[in-house]
Order: sequence, then structure tokens, then C-alpha cells
Amino acid sequence: MARERLLVVGADAGGMSAAAQARRRRDREQLEIVVFDRGRYTSWSACGLPYYVGDLVHDADALIARTPQEFRASGIDVQLEHEVVAIDAHARVLRVRGPGGERSEPFDQLVIATGSVPVRPELPGARAPGIHGIQTIGDGIALRADVDSGAGRAVVVGAGYIGLEMAEALHRRGLQVCVVDHSAQPMGTLDPDMGALVADALRALGIELHLGVSVEAFATGADGRVTAVRTGDGVLPADIVVLGLGVRPASGLAAEAGLAVGETGGIVTDPRMATSAEGIWAAGDCVEVFHRVSRRPVAIALGTHANKQGRVVGVNATGGALTFPGVIGTAVTKLCEHEVGRTGLTEREALEAGFRSVSAVIESTTRAGYYPGSAPITVKIVAEEPTGRLLGAQVIGREGAAKRIDMLAVAIWSEMTADEFSQLDLGYAPPFSPVWDPVLIAARQVAAKTTA
Amino acid sequence: MARERLLVVGADAGGMSAAAQARRRRDREQLEIVVFDRGRYTSWSACGLPYYVGDLVHDADALIARTPQEFRASGIDVQLEHEVVAIDAHARVLRVRGPGGERSEPFDQLVIATGSVPVRPELPGARAPGIHGIQTIGDGIALRADVDSGAGRAVVVGAGYIGLEMAEALHRRGLQVCVVDHSAQPMGTLDPDMGALVADALRALGIELHLGVSVEAFATGADGRVTAVRTGDGVLPADIVVLGLGVRPASGLAAEAGLAVGETGGIVTDPRMATSAEGIWAAGDCVEVFHRVSRRPVAIALGTHANKQGRVVGVNATGGALTFPGVIGTAVTKLCEHEVGRTGLTEREALEAGFRSVSAVIESTTRAGYYPGSAPITVKIVAEEPTGRLLGAQVIGREGAAKRIDMLAVAIWSEMTADEFSQLDLGYAPPFSPVWDPVLIAARQVAAKTTA
Repeated sequence: MARERLLVVGADAGGMSAAAQARRRRDREQLEIVVFDRGRYTSWSACGLPYYVGDLVHDADALIARTPQEFRASGIDVQLEHEVVAIDAHARVLRVRGPGGERSEPFDQLVIATGSVPVRPELPGARAPGIHGIQTIGDGIALRADVDSGAGRAVVVGAGYIGLEMAEALHRRGLQVCVVDHSAQPMGTLDPDMGALVADALRALGIELHLGVSVEAFATGADGRVTAVRTGDGVLPADIVVLGLGVRPASGLAAEAGLAVGETGGIVTDPRMATSAEGIWAAGDCVEVFHRVSRRPVAIALGTHANKQGRVVGVNATGGALTFPGVIGTAVTKLCEHEVGRTGLTEREALEAGFRSVSAVIESTTRAGYYPGSAPITVKIVAEEPTGRLLGAQVIGREGAAKRIDMLAVAIWSEMTADEFSQLDLGYAPPFSPVWDPVLIAARQVAAKTTA
Repeated sequence: MARERLLVVGADAGGMSAAAQARRRRDREQLEIVVFDRGRYTSWSACGLPYYVGDLVHDADALIARTPQEFRASGIDVQLEHEVVAIDAHARVLRVRGPGGERSEPFDQLVIATGSVPVRPELPGARAPGIHGIQTIGDGIALRADVDSGAGRAVVVGAGYIGLEMAEALHRRGLQVCVVDHSAQPMGTLDPDMGALVADALRALGIELHLGVSVEAFATGADGRVTAVRTGDGVLPADIVVLGLGVRPASGLAAEAGLAVGETGGIVTDPRMATSAEGIWAAGDCVEVFHRVSRRPVAIALGTHANKQGRVVGVNATGGALTFPGVIGTAVTKLCEHEVGRTGLTEREALEAGFRSVSAVIESTTRAGYYPGSAPITVKIVAEEPTGRLLGAQVIGREGAAKRIDMLAVAIWSEMTADEFSQLDLGYAPPFSPVWDPVLIAARQVAAKTTA
């Protein structure tokens, strides 16, 4: 049997998981594996960037899970600073542009793991020095260098996870931080009532919020560097601007090759992560996936999904059979001492997905009231009316709050009702929860509101 | 309609939850509710005693969730220092012995919530001053008084949860602490390999363990106080001895009244928590309940179960219909910085329950490796062979380890397979977990070991 050739476009979580899994299943004599990436790093943690900027992590290298050398040692040929500029799905060839010029690379199997691209506002001055995207390690190093060189005022545009994590990091480094977002509440993945609690927490930290405010332009000084952000709410002086406007799937290459791309902007795949072209697979931030609660495709950029999808692709591209079961939109973050978690659908998302829903919001404590360090926690649960099926949950509180979202994630995944959930046998000890865990109290209350 | 009479025996979690729930459903004109307890407190947290002894909680009153006055204000007549000495299930009358003598109290509905009694070794000297049980607030106050008066050496007999929590508390107070247990490993609710990790952690704290050792007698001094514990492994000097040998259901009163009591020693009930006698209900540590994985009755003394069962009884005793769905043996504890959790069946329990099983034990970290405070965690998962159905899990690690058991508890409750579990969409952010949460890694490994 001739040696097959598996090419991978993109050397981050999705691509390298696929490559590593394929290598585990096929040895070098059976399968050649080559990964191309236009950047200079493999398998690094984008989620770790705020902690590097905030100096909780001192060295950017710590964010790299596995180096190109390590991959090469395991028989995966990693070619960095090689950009794939075209895919010919019929001829089964890639056009690759590297330091030595452009060349063609034939494949038997192809994995597209091109990740995501940050949303950039098309506004005057948006490319000025001092304005930072925050997607790559290079972005993180550049931003941190600006902070280290003594910037005093930062404006963060976008109050989603990454924007707020960066705002916290800059606040931690002693900068005066403003966050600007066009929404009325930060963290649009939460319902407004829970987002308002996040806003309160940020303000209590001393972070200034300008909500319901649009950014109009970036002012620059004589040296061309950014000096201020002009908003509908006035001018905000800035030595540094961080753009945290989220990302969209990097599906352009796939679309140009004629592969199906969905309304979310993500590459369409079947449950095996096969694209619309035979022998071409996709994984990671560039794809859209099935949301198990809304039953609609969604594009969610998260390393956990990319890793799982990559593993599925690595198996399937080598003749195996695995499926990716979809997502339910679980996410957690830490903003100083505040933890935020969400899973499933918000009230608004439930409505959009065609559900009738009820919700309950409760306040409790993270530990038994008498135990030292017991702190407030707010839990919101959304359930289907009248069945009581759990649709979503949101949690905000101190230490121990965010990971509580995981048990709700398991329950929502299992299509459990709020009533059944409220009866669960969960771990109880005074250092970890009140005798009725806050999530059980919330489930009981939402169950009482359903009419079934 | 004549006013009905609901009597409750026992004023702790099970009894008071039943009384409170019944009161919510029936007003004083419809239903009289009287609770008898031979002790002097209502609804207090037994699980909080180690923290009071260890001075993390400074005042014993903090452990009382609701006082008799608060219950009385809500229309529940609480009669403390009143011991129920007999139940006549046919005549529907209790014999109650109070400060003013013995009397009869008729009932329409009766709730038995007599709790548990500590196991006491029938050994020479076992009743000497300085030897402490640790079940009631009175026990806790007496033990703490001994500690406060300058005891230097403590021996804890029994290396289960409560024994180890007390050992930690005494260690925290500066005592030199030995733990003696007849088993080869502490914490018999874990498999021996995981128990060995608990033993390592305790020894690292400076707590001395005498395992596989039996207690033979308690030596006393001229004043009658305990001075040492004589064991098969030699004599251990002791100013204080704590008996942490666990508890058994306090089902004697029910048995004498002719009610069915099971092999576990717990009162037998149906899913509505009805005993074998019409109109007599039971809740809390005195009952046996259905274990959803082993499908056998078990007696597990835990406030969380007592609360839930009490609520079920309060509804059913007032004409409603609720069922208690059973337990899966979830438990968590904190020993200094070490967290321990377990749920479902251990390997040994799985075998006893008739399952063929496989298991995987993995080591990972509680946070992303590069995030400050990332600490070791060991996860063991037991799954059915060949189906892969999750049967049980055990976790030991630092901060954030124990509550991870909850997501496994939800999954085991839902009869999820290890493979399905490994695909879950759980919360990920570097402060909370590596990109593959340790429980997912363990699930993947155990899934790979099943042959289905």
C-alpha cells in the first residue's frame, strides 16, 4: 500500500489534536502528516493571554502546550510560517506560500483548522500603533510590552469574556481601565439581569464601564500612536486600546474552495466533522456545530471544542468512526475574585429558539453560612414551560461559583428536568456548600414555577 | 373538619424539614404540629462540629440553622428535653417523657426522625472522662472545652470522614494527633489505592496514622480520666480521645413499635418515605434508602438526604405526593488543603453489587498548568464492563478537586457512559481547569478500557 498523505491547515488546538490522533493510529510508514501554519507557534493557549498580560504568567512560552520540535519528534512535520493560500478540493492539492516561495502540496486527506479571525471595527484610526488585537501570542507580547513600558490608561472595546479578562489584567497591572460596549450590559452571553451583576462587580473593582455606547473613531497623536477613543459618550483618553470584539470563523479559504459555509460563518460539517468535500475535514473555531438545546448551528470559539473535534477528525481521517456530539454553550471566566459561568440557553436565547420558558434567580452562599470564606453566589436557571426541562443556567459569585455550572451542564446535556435536578445526591460539606447547594435551591424554585 | 395532629420525633434536619414543609401546606386551624426531642437544640449542623472544635467557627450557636423560638413563631410547637419512649402504632399514641413526667400524646400522622447513634466500642475504659463522642452540639462543646484547657495529645479512633475531620481540627489547634483504624487505609468509602493517597496527605500534615491496628482498651489515671489508648500496635498516650467510628440508624423505637427495619439497621420505607405502618413516616439518618447504582438499600447519615426526605414526608403527611428518588453515595470532605470526594460505587462495591467493572486512575492539575495555584488532582473512575456505564468516581486533590465529584454524580445519576461523559461541554478557563478537565481525561481512559 502506498503511503498516504494527511495535510493539516492550522497548527493550533484543532489541527494539532487531529494530527496527534492520526499519528497515534497510523505509523510513519503508513501515513505522512504535514501541518502548515502561517504563524510561528503550535498548540498555544489563547485563553491564557490575559494571564500573561496581567503577569500571573510571567513567560509567554508557558502558554505553549507542545512545541514544533515535540511534534516533529513524534513524527508530525510542522511547517510554520507557511500560509495555505488555496485549496483545490478536486485536484486534491494545496497552494502553500512559505519563506521560499509558493508551491503545491498534494493530499489524500485534508484537515482544515484555520481557527478564527478577530472582529476589527472599520473605524478611522483602527490600525494605529497602541491598538491591540488579542488573538495570537504575538498580540499578547506586543500588548504586554506596551504595558511594561508604562502605559497609564487603557480602553477596552468590547465587554465579552476576552474583553473583560483583558480589562481585569490591565487593572491588575495598575492601569486605569475603561470598558466600552454598545450593549446595555457586559457579557452578552448572559441575560441582562445577570450581566448587571457582572457590571456591579467590575465597577466595584474600579473598572469604568461605558455601556450602551458606540465607538466612533480612534484619535492619534503626532507620532501616529493612539491617544484616545472617541465614543458616543465622549472622548476617552488612552495610552493603550484593546479590541475585544470577539472572533468569527476563519472560513474564507474553505469557502473559496467551494466548501459549504453556514449562516454562522462557520464551515458546515456532518457529525463526523466531514466537510461537504470528500476527504476534507474541519475542526476548531473555523466550524459551526450543533447546539444540543437550541438544535441550531452555532460557531463557538473554544479550545475545548477544538481539541475534541480535532480528536474526532484524527480518528475519522484515518478510517475510524467517531462523532462530535455538539455543544451546549458552557463557558466560565474569572474576573478578580468574581467567577462567572453559563451553560445552555439564556432566557432570550430560549425565546429565539422557540421555547416557552420560566426562570428563577436565587441568592445563596458558596459555603455553609458559618464556614469562613462563605461568600455570595447568584444562580439563575431557565426551564422549559410546562415540562420543567432544564434549558440553561447562569452563575455569578466568589470562589467555587463558576465550576458549579458544570453539574448543570451535565444535567442539561442529559435533558433532565429542574425537579429531577433538585433531588440529586450532590457532595455536601460545610467548606463547599450550604446543606442545600445554591444550584439545587434555584432548581427547586424554577420547578415550582412550571405548571406541569 | 376536626383539626388533625402531626407529631414529629426528633428536631433535627429530617424532622424539622418535615414539620416546616407540613406547616407551609396546612395552616394552624387545619393541622397541629408538635415536635419532641430529647436534646436541647433544633436543626443544627452536625457536619459543622469539626470546624467549631478547630475554631474556624467560634461560636456553637452559629451551627444552629433555626432556633426553637423561630419554629414556634412559624406555628410549630417544639418540645425539647422530651424523649419519646414508645410508639403505639395501632392506638396512634406516643409515650413522651419530659421534665414534668411521662404522658401520652395522640397523633393522626407521625414522623419518625430519630437520627443516628454513634458506634461506641465496648472496651474497658470506654466511658472515661476525656473520651468524646462527636455527634451532638453538647459533644462538640465538651470536646472543645478539653482542647481549650490545654490538652496536648489526642488519639482519634476511626479514620472515616468525621474521624479525619476531627483529627484535622485538633491538629489545627496545635495538638499532636494520632489516628487509629483497624483498616489498612483511611476512609473506607474509597478504594484502597485512593485511600492510600489520603493517608499520604495526612502524614504530610504531621498526623500520625496507625492503620490495620485494633483498639484494645483505654487506660485511665488516678482521677479516672483517660491517659492512653492501648492498641495492638502499642500504647498511645492521650489527653483526649475522640471516637469517630461512625453511626448507625436510631431505629430502636420504630422496631419496638413493630415497624419494619432492614438489614442495614435503618427503618424501611417506600419511595414516599411511608413506613410499614399506616400514617407513620420516617426521614433522616434513621431510615434506609435505595442506592440507585447498587439497587440495594443503604443507610447513609447525611444532612442533605435528611432535608430532602423531610420535605417529601412533610408533603406526603399532608395529603400530597412526592417520592424520594434514592441516593448514589456522594460525599466530599476537606482535610486542610486536601479535598476528597466520592460518588457511586467503588471497585469493591461494584463487585459486591454484581457488576463487572474496569477503572482508570489519572493524575492531572486543578487549573491550567501555567496558571498560579495549579495543584495536583487524582481522579479514579469506575465503569461497567463492557457497557462503559459510569458506576463510581473518587477524587483527591487541592482546591477545586472535591466539587468536581458533582458533575460525575449527575452523570452517574443519569446512567451516562464514560464515553458520553468524556464528550461533555464543561466549563473551561485556565483558572479552573486544564483544557481537558481531569474528570474528562479519566473518563476517556476508562472508556478506552471497556470492550464494548
